[in-house]
Amino acid sequence: MSTTGFPKSLEDAQAFDAADPLAAHRKAFSMPEGVTYLVGHSLGAAPVKALKQANTTAGTDWACDIVGSWNTADWINLPQTTGAKIAPLLGVAPDEVIVCDSVSLNLFKLASALLETGRHKRRLIVEREEFPTDQYMIAKLAGLVGAEHVHTDAGGGLASLKDGGVLVKSLVDFRTGHIADLGAHEEAARASGGAIIWDLSHATGVLDLRLADWGASYAVGCTYKYLNGGPGAPGFIYVSRDKQNELSTPLPGWLGHANAFAFEDAYTPADGLKRFISGTPPILSLATLNAALDVFEGVNQAHLQAKANRLGDMCLHVFEKLGLASTSPPVGSSRGGHVSVCHPEGYAISRALADQGIKTDYRPPDTIRFGLSPLYLSYSEVWSALDTFRDILARETWRDPKYQVRSTVT
Amino acid sequence: MSTTGFPKSLEDAQAFDAADPLAAHRKAFSMPEGVTYLVGHSLGAAPVKALKQANTTAGTDWACDIVGSWNTADWINLPQTTGAKIAPLLGVAPDEVIVCDSVSLNLFKLASALLETGRHKRRLIVEREEFPTDQYMIAKLAGLVGAEHVHTDAGGGLASLKDGGVLVKSLVDFRTGHIADLGAHEEAARASGGAIIWDLSHATGVLDLRLADWGASYAVGCTYKYLNGGPGAPGFIYVSRDKQNELSTPLPGWLGHANAFAFEDAYTPADGLKRFISGTPPILSLATLNAALDVFEGVNQAHLQAKANRLGDMCLHVFEKLGLASTSPPVGSSRGGHVSVCHPEGYAISRALADQGIKTDYRPPDTIRFGLSPLYLSYSEVWSALDTFRDILARETWRDPKYQVRSTVT
Repeated sequence: MSTTGFPKSLEDAQAFDAADPLAAHRKAFSMPEGVTYLVGHSLGAAPVKALKQANTTAGTDWACDIVGSWNTADWINLPQTTGAKIAPLLGVAPDEVIVCDSVSLNLFKLASALLETGRHKRRLIVEREEFPTDQYMIAKLAGLVGAEHVHTDAGGGLASLKDGGVLVKSLVDFRTGHIADLGAHEEAARASGGAIIWDLSHATGVLDLRLADWGASYAVGCTYKYLNGGPGAPGFIYVSRDKQNELSTPLPGWLGHANAFAFEDAYTPADGLKRFISGTPPILSLATLNAALDVFEGVNQAHLQAKANRLGDMCLHVFEKLGLASTSPPVGSSRGGHVSVCHPEGYAISRALADQGIKTDYRPPDTIRFGLSPLYLSYSEVWSALDTFRDILARETWRDPKYQVRSTVT
Repeated sequence: MSTTGFPKSLEDAQAFDAADPLAAHRKAFSMPEGVTYLVGHSLGAAPVKALKQANTTAGTDWACDIVGSWNTADWINLPQTTGAKIAPLLGVAPDEVIVCDSVSLNLFKLASALLETGRHKRRLIVEREEFPTDQYMIAKLAGLVGAEHVHTDAGGGLASLKDGGVLVKSLVDFRTGHIADLGAHEEAARASGGAIIWDLSHATGVLDLRLADWGASYAVGCTYKYLNGGPGAPGFIYVSRDKQNELSTPLPGWLGHANAFAFEDAYTPADGLKRFISGTPPILSLATLNAALDVFEGVNQAHLQAKANRLGDMCLHVFEKLGLASTSPPVGSSRGGHVSVCHPEGYAISRALADQGIKTDYRPPDTIRFGLSPLYLSYSEVWSALDTFRDILARETWRDPKYQVRSTVT
């Protein structure tokens, strides 16, 4: 048994659990019985405190004080107070993050705002195989405002950035878990007068992010994966303080106005990031997210990343022994919180796993993703899940026709 | 006593209550004790069923089936199924309404899409004194895409539309409750080859809307006022079926793609209104709204409008007797669900009312709004509220310095 490296047996896994500084955090979540939940990279499990808050926001704040809760429950400041809770997870200051709308819309806002500063070439760069929303938003924005649209091959963003412009780039690839070289990209941006909007959707809450130290100025991200904010919880925007007031949102709404309750005919942006709020935010979702973030109190982010990596190594080691390919970075290297494994019958296998209580997800054409959320998974339960996976392959359980039927959402 | 016209005494009001076909609906709401809630035009009260759904969506669907609930709780179709519940309130078909994002963003989407059809002059028209978001979004969109921006005086939209273009117009004015002449506007649009996006935020759930019969093709609206969807519940988009597939959203996200779960690099819009979904919707807010809409089952919309008008007449009659001006359409005419009353000390008076359990809101510079949500208010409780209002004016209770302190949200 060893607690260096990663577990290679059930006994190893149990030893890692015994020494796990994050083990106590599992009880902060409401986990269903009999389920090993490996889809935290898609929708995080529910923190107990978030469920309680959903109940309070609806059943007390809305039902009793109704519109008065904008003041008494401080709904009006939730975009800022929630952003301030995300900020330490990015390694930035509390007033450098705001929560509003979705990651898709926030990308549009930041990309448009960066073009409008006039500081960068009017070219918008995005890679193929990037998360779809990022590709669609950038293509459309370029067309609408007449900017050059550079749709490079996967991995081609860095080279293209050397000619300037604004690059949208996921820090962690949604299929493979590969972490982009942030430093090299920011260096290229500085050299060319370009800018980068980092999409941190698959990175926040699982990597030890230090955006300020790393010199990144702009980012967006979602909050329902490793941040466990609840289904469709609103997205966030990060802009370093020195850059905030030079940005103009393309989607100016009344709640982002400097003086919203004066109901003025002309738009004056609020100071700082508040300008990126457009309409009234979905308070039930936002207040629930706000409470969900409290599970990160006292958590050392380096522990999160180390545990996710060890769990990933453990999975990849098993995949390798089974002779299965993975598109994820190999054993021993750094990656996001999920690992992929390729099998032509990936869809059916993921369904067979689900039938035995092991939830994973499938991404076409042939990839199963194992999400390894370090706050609520134990080494031994992931080990057991890998045992079941081996068993399904050995017995070819996935051949059962019932596992071939597709659901709407995969 | 009389149940024609409107109540002119407490006994009258009680007689109207006894004959009120909507009286039974009050029990569908969770109303706080001792409060007369006259702010339903800002944030509707909580339907019991909505509170229950918020609890189920968080505590059962999210907590137990987690990501599986996209299929098992049909989260994925909530934008459409919720839109289908709003459709009859607009007088349109179920597949002509979708729920997504906020009214601010939906305005931007529709206005941009209409310009892009090439069917209308590239001019965007909006009136001063229109709801602020509508003014800001239109001004910014015009600048971004290089369309002419026509910012007319209040009430000048109709005349301007005669030169073509796209007009954004509230059906019910947020300050006064005045109902715009939809027929005249649509006639002008037809004659000039223009188009109108109706903002139905203050109209839906209180007026007997017949958009299809009236020949209106485009609308947006919010769902947290008379639709009682909860704080910041997502907005809706209406587009008549024949126009849907010619529209291209400026904010294309992965969930509006024809084949979202194929994660394709190129955007192909989904059929119909689904294309207007951008990112992942805030499910807690959306599922709660979906359940909230069930209070309209079996409600005759003509009864809603008639009761709101009678309650408004009753208020205006009292204001008149007190010698106070109102910017709302006078007694006996049709208007939205709220009436205004003007007083230089409007803010302090609204605070003094609140202290006695009567919730109203204040809009600068001097307007108190009385929101008269017909589903959960009785004639006699509004009558009593008017008594208290009279009393506060007579005793000048509002002079107390504590009523001068401003809250963040008014």
